Amino acid sequence: MAKKETKTLDELFLDTLKDIYFAEKKILTALPKMKKAAQSEDLAEAFEKHRDETEGQVERLEKVFELMEEKAKGKKCPAILGILEEGEEIIKEFKGSPALDAGLLSAAQAVEHYEISRYGTLKAWARKLGMNEAARLLDETLKEETKTDQTLTKIAESTINQHAEGA
Amino acid sequence: MAKKETKTLDELFLDTLKDIYFAEKKILTALPKMKKAAQSEDLAEAFEKHRDETEGQVERLEKVFELMEEKAKGKKCPAILGILEEGEEIIKEFKGSPALDAGLLSAAQAVEHYEISRYGTLKAWARKLGMNEAARLLDETLKEETKTDQTLTKIAESTINQHAEGA
Repeated sequence: MAKKETKTLDELFLDTLKDIYFAEKKILTALPKMKKAAQSEDLAEAFEKHRDETEGQVERLEKVFELMEEKAKGKKCPAILGILEEGEEIIKEFKGSPALDAGLLSAAQAVEHYEISRYGTLKAWARKLGMNEAARLLDETLKEETKTDQTLTKIAESTINQHAEGA
Repeated sequence: MAKKETKTLDELFLDTLKDIYFAEKKILTALPKMKKAAQSEDLAEAFEKHRDETEGQVERLEKVFELMEEKAKGKKCPAILGILEEGEEIIKEFKGSPALDAGLLSAAQAVEHYEISRYGTLKAWARKLGMNEAARLLDETLKEETKTDQTLTKIAESTINQHAEGA
């Protein structure tokens, strides 16, 4: 396909959809590692629950691709790779530390915020493009991510009180 | 210095402080490029204003280092490098497109959300560590970042109505 002179909002939307599809798939593989590393049961459970949720979010993205009559396909997302790399560094550097869970939580919240930003943008663009069903699906995920971030904040508050006393 | 057996919350705090210090300095160099690329005056102005704000945020971080009697020093932050790389890709791929500003805004909001997540975490840890002045400084920046994100959302809403009609 010849490169078009100017790219339009629907192309930007599709590009960003591929970016978050790639990101969600990477998050699916990262969450079990984060669960395994977690010291507290609450945090391990939260990671397991969010893994299940993420599967549903991937399915919703596949529905959006379908609505656009496009093949579901990821596009390398350097942002999520960088964010997850920081999480892996924390697992490595804080293994056995009372501050490990606090670090895992901070890494998980950075992931959530990336997703919140992406889904917020995609939802606004879907509306502009008149893709109401896509906007509804994206909004459903946006609400889940926002709720997950709030849950992580609550766990973080109790975690730094219980587990990080060594400081 | 010999590696300690267990790392504690104050070390995690210092690590994350270095991470966001590195990130803010990278953001300082990215914002003029984003301003130059922006099509609308509103967006160019917002990037310029945020550049000035970011300088103040860097100074606040330096004060936090000072309060800890540590030298202000960055630590490579793969997350911000990845997030900014996506912004550069958008500038390259959507140059001359009516959707460029929408793309720049999405990139800038991803940056804001990364910062919101980091400052939220750092503020909570500073409180736990009894570093009240540091917590106050971090909260000041957190509020600025949240406000900037809201401003970007407003510009994004008017931008996709004005400039991305080509879709």
